[in-house]
Amino acid sequence: MEYHAGAYDVIVVGAGHAGCEAALAASRMGCKTLIITLTLDSIAMMPCNPSIGGTGKGHLVREIDALGGEMGLNIDKAFIQSRMLNTAKGPAVHSLRAQADKSKYHIEMKKTIENQPKLDLVQGEVIDIIVKNQQARGVKTRTGSIYEGNAIILATGVYLKSKIFMGEVNYESGPNGLFPANYLSNRLRELGCNLRRFKTGTPARIHRDSIDFSKMSIQPGDTEIVPFSFMNDEINIEQQPCWLTRTTPETLRIINENLKRSSFYRGDMEGVGPRYCPSIEDKIVRFQDKPTHQLFIEPEGLNTKEMYLQGMSTSLPVEVQVEMIRSVIGLEKAEIMRPAYAIEYDCIDPTQLKLSLEMKHINNFFSAGQFNGTSGYEEAAAQGLIAGINAVLKIRREEPLILDRSEAYIGVIIDDLVTKGTNEPYRMMTSRAEYRLVLRQDNADLRLTEKGYKVGLVTEERYKRFSGKKDKIALEMERLKKTNVTPKEVNNILEEIGSSLIKTGVSLYELLKRPEVSYKEIKRLKKNEVNYEDIDKEVEEQCEIVIKYEGYIDKQLKQIDQFKKLEGKKIPEGINYLEIQGLRLEARQKLNSIRPLSVGQASRISGVSPADISVLLVYLEQKRRQKVGEKN
Amino acid sequence: MEYHAGAYDVIVVGAGHAGCEAALAASRMGCKTLIITLTLDSIAMMPCNPSIGGTGKGHLVREIDALGGEMGLNIDKAFIQSRMLNTAKGPAVHSLRAQADKSKYHIEMKKTIENQPKLDLVQGEVIDIIVKNQQARGVKTRTGSIYEGNAIILATGVYLKSKIFMGEVNYESGPNGLFPANYLSNRLRELGCNLRRFKTGTPARIHRDSIDFSKMSIQPGDTEIVPFSFMNDEINIEQQPCWLTRTTPETLRIINENLKRSSFYRGDMEGVGPRYCPSIEDKIVRFQDKPTHQLFIEPEGLNTKEMYLQGMSTSLPVEVQVEMIRSVIGLEKAEIMRPAYAIEYDCIDPTQLKLSLEMKHINNFFSAGQFNGTSGYEEAAAQGLIAGINAVLKIRREEPLILDRSEAYIGVIIDDLVTKGTNEPYRMMTSRAEYRLVLRQDNADLRLTEKGYKVGLVTEERYKRFSGKKDKIALEMERLKKTNVTPKEVNNILEEIGSSLIKTGVSLYELLKRPEVSYKEIKRLKKNEVNYEDIDKEVEEQCEIVIKYEGYIDKQLKQIDQFKKLEGKKIPEGINYLEIQGLRLEARQKLNSIRPLSVGQASRISGVSPADISVLLVYLEQKRRQKVGEKN
Repeated sequence: MEYHAGAYDVIVVGAGHAGCEAALAASRMGCKTLIITLTLDSIAMMPCNPSIGGTGKGHLVREIDALGGEMGLNIDKAFIQSRMLNTAKGPAVHSLRAQADKSKYHIEMKKTIENQPKLDLVQGEVIDIIVKNQQARGVKTRTGSIYEGNAIILATGVYLKSKIFMGEVNYESGPNGLFPANYLSNRLRELGCNLRRFKTGTPARIHRDSIDFSKMSIQPGDTEIVPFSFMNDEINIEQQPCWLTRTTPETLRIINENLKRSSFYRGDMEGVGPRYCPSIEDKIVRFQDKPTHQLFIEPEGLNTKEMYLQGMSTSLPVEVQVEMIRSVIGLEKAEIMRPAYAIEYDCIDPTQLKLSLEMKHINNFFSAGQFNGTSGYEEAAAQGLIAGINAVLKIRREEPLILDRSEAYIGVIIDDLVTKGTNEPYRMMTSRAEYRLVLRQDNADLRLTEKGYKVGLVTEERYKRFSGKKDKIALEMERLKKTNVTPKEVNNILEEIGSSLIKTGVSLYELLKRPEVSYKEIKRLKKNEVNYEDIDKEVEEQCEIVIKYEGYIDKQLKQIDQFKKLEGKKIPEGINYLEIQGLRLEARQKLNSIRPLSVGQASRISGVSPADISVLLVYLEQKRRQKVGEKN
Repeated sequence: MEYHAGAYDVIVVGAGHAGCEAALAASRMGCKTLIITLTLDSIAMMPCNPSIGGTGKGHLVREIDALGGEMGLNIDKAFIQSRMLNTAKGPAVHSLRAQADKSKYHIEMKKTIENQPKLDLVQGEVIDIIVKNQQARGVKTRTGSIYEGNAIILATGVYLKSKIFMGEVNYESGPNGLFPANYLSNRLRELGCNLRRFKTGTPARIHRDSIDFSKMSIQPGDTEIVPFSFMNDEINIEQQPCWLTRTTPETLRIINENLKRSSFYRGDMEGVGPRYCPSIEDKIVRFQDKPTHQLFIEPEGLNTKEMYLQGMSTSLPVEVQVEMIRSVIGLEKAEIMRPAYAIEYDCIDPTQLKLSLEMKHINNFFSAGQFNGTSGYEEAAAQGLIAGINAVLKIRREEPLILDRSEAYIGVIIDDLVTKGTNEPYRMMTSRAEYRLVLRQDNADLRLTEKGYKVGLVTEERYKRFSGKKDKIALEMERLKKTNVTPKEVNNILEEIGSSLIKTGVSLYELLKRPEVSYKEIKRLKKNEVNYEDIDKEVEEQCEIVIKYEGYIDKQLKQIDQFKKLEGKKIPEGINYLEIQGLRLEARQKLNSIRPLSVGQASRISGVSPADISVLLVYLEQKRRQKVGEKN
């Protein structure tokens, strides 16, 4: 039984973190959009940790926000604690992280989606993708509804043929008693998608009243809250604390003794797990010398006593979980409310995708999120946003939005996935970004809001706010450079903070370069003709970072220039690499499969050597001359 | 793999409306209690209508509250509209009904359960009931956890082998993409439970912005809100309206044309559906002459645009649903967010239960809710509460709490189920209660709070509040009887309201008997030496009802006396009915199977005639004499 249920520009399959961003972006850019999900009750569900952001991930959220995405706005509505991490280190690795009220996060995102014009939300299970002439044309649900679409975005998360593992026990299931999607995988294989099994895990949830917090150290939120969204000024809430505790040698013993019962080690699972989010048994095995491991205890929301055990994901049997958890300091009497489990699911080899997140072999068919082989809410949302934008641009017959590695963490994640592929769930980290001194969380708007505005996703309101800030930064930089102070005016302050005295007049700009001088000192100078009340904190922050790190930033900008040169050397479509003389066989095959857009991208493909790149450059130059010759 | 996960007094399987009441009652009565559910995210879920109460059902909620249950308190926290129904009729059928914010209802109930001392909440699937020597001893979960328990309460709702139907499509599933419980049914059959298939259905949810409310009539809440719980005085919230609309002849045509595609009519379903909550196609078939049917449009909560289509439950295919819904006045452009579906599930023949809700053939094994063959949140909660109380009383080796038909709607529902059985999902209605003039929603506390206190469920706080009210009623009744007014004092008021004048002094009591005289008039009399500020509205209400309906109530109380006589004639346990000479064969078999506690209960068994009852009475008298003879 089939029937025509509606026609859309863009259809998004799945309403997790990727699907929500994709659908909101597409509809906000003016496309009639449909989002279909297995149940409306788990929109933007957080089945694992109750937090958004963190090292590297916080950068992604800021970038999503700068481009006009929703994640930053949504967590600003639903957070219960906020912390800027790594503040002892340089500004490149400062990362914002917020604890979320999971229930509120879901409710607020569902509300936003329901209220978004041009966006329809429907409960259903997609079992078929309709493809004609190698172009995606629509989807079919289990109840026979056919939705036509000019572009389809898959964001199925962990639901494709998902299977849950707890020790010796395993069964087909999505997270938390939800249904798996068992039909779509086969159809995707038929369509030529190269599916693999990945796995991930989540720790147990324990009852708050069964925890002895007196044995743990408290982790309060920041006294000054920095919102995630560039659209929010100040948010004042009563924050909830987290707690820090440790495993004991007894934990080590219990895990070692029961290792053979872990689903991972039993060999029951086909899937590959996330290296940077390992299970506790993985950590124990890899670092046998380490007598204890840190654990964070985090609330799952304001209205619940469920507490999340950050750092204790496992696929050990439930009975071992109890023993293991009760060996942790302060958890001697812990009561498990939801046991930990590992989950295995189908996902695609992302080298089948273009940098736009469109599939190479099926036009107008995009994918995003865990289905592309990543791990984490933020990584999913980032891809969802880009897939949503590019689905619209494709329909408009415009060039896709491709952020390169020097422009955004989002560029890094997508380039890594598409160019290098991944054989384990990919997680964002600051160390993956080679230009991280430029890709800071504080300047995500300065890097990206213009681009978001150009594609029509950033609202006028956001753009105006952004432009205002940009102008203010320019003005203040100008003022700092122009304004000179005399030794008489400043030396007493410099002496006070142990900074060397000046002999002739210097500019405020020069002063601020000194590591020990901050805006606090600048503000004390009578010289200032400005009212500091008028200068936003974020303007000060930008000026200070840019001035203090000027040398490093300049150096990195030069590297980026180099990088951009190679990225700028575009490779024409349709090249047959197999014919290029002088290329090593592996390079020919890899290039033919990845089909890089530029020589820069080609150089990052594993198996393509610098010698291969030289050959490729010569070949491209020959081709170019040949073409010029033909024209004359 | 099995392991000992804990030992409890009472274990409750399922955390829907029955399970929540059962677990809260047991733990509040001091028993160490465990509640296990498939997912913690659907505790107290409302998978169908977004309301609590209504005709008959409102009485149940009031009774649950009077006994110390949770439903009334919880809806008082989560309602968004409140109405007292049937106020144009007599007080017997006044029924309170509240629209709920579904999400909040779940969050609040989960919070209450998590904060309840002596109650543990765990996510898991029970796949086995451990029975030794015909006594329930514990449960086993899918992950091998064995929980020992002295009493087990099953409250599995619609989850046992549940299957969803939409037209030609059907598949195994719980509601809203949740897992069914596929393992427990077989084990229950092994244990001698006589399982049947029942079915129920729910209408589609549509997007608020797609509705043309201008064509409908608005249904606002009451200006004066009556709380559900006797513990709450006044609740002031901004209420949300509902809307009333109608189907059209076009709706009729669409349904008639597609009837053969309905899962009900296709014969795909084995289950029997609820007569008093029929699908729209059932209504059309039964009342072909009726050109239109009423529909109510109700919000599903404050934070969502999902709207519930009260009166349009169906198992027609999704494509027909769209057409059918769009033929309704004001729904011409309706967008479906969740399609309607029918669901089929395993449940027990409740004649296998005692009036205590314990199974006859397995000691300490109780069941409640939809599993017992009922329909509706309130019916489920009422049974859950009684099962919870009686599980505790059984462990304490005390007599069970059995409410008879003259004491409570709860008594009616349980007596109906256990004595008469049901071959379709049973729904509470005022017409099922023969003593409904006495079983009013307004006096549920006066009828039941004492009983709840005696078993230890009603708190001191509630009992004190209740006693205070009772005393105030007695005092006020006394005062009304004692206080006389002269014609001079009252005749001007009586004239004003068109009541006949008095010639000699009468008591306030006599005055209030007149239908046209209300407390409003009484209050105007100078004669009153009381300050009416001190008399609660509910005290006035009680006095007025009791006085005005005294004649009818007295008559009903006499009937109840008669009824009680037969209920008081207890039948000793262990009687072999098959041996009783003179009983018709059918009566012998039915009595042997139902095993009534009293002659009264015996007389209500279908297939047991008044002649059979006479024979039984003679037999019992003989037995009694025989026993007395033996003793002498």
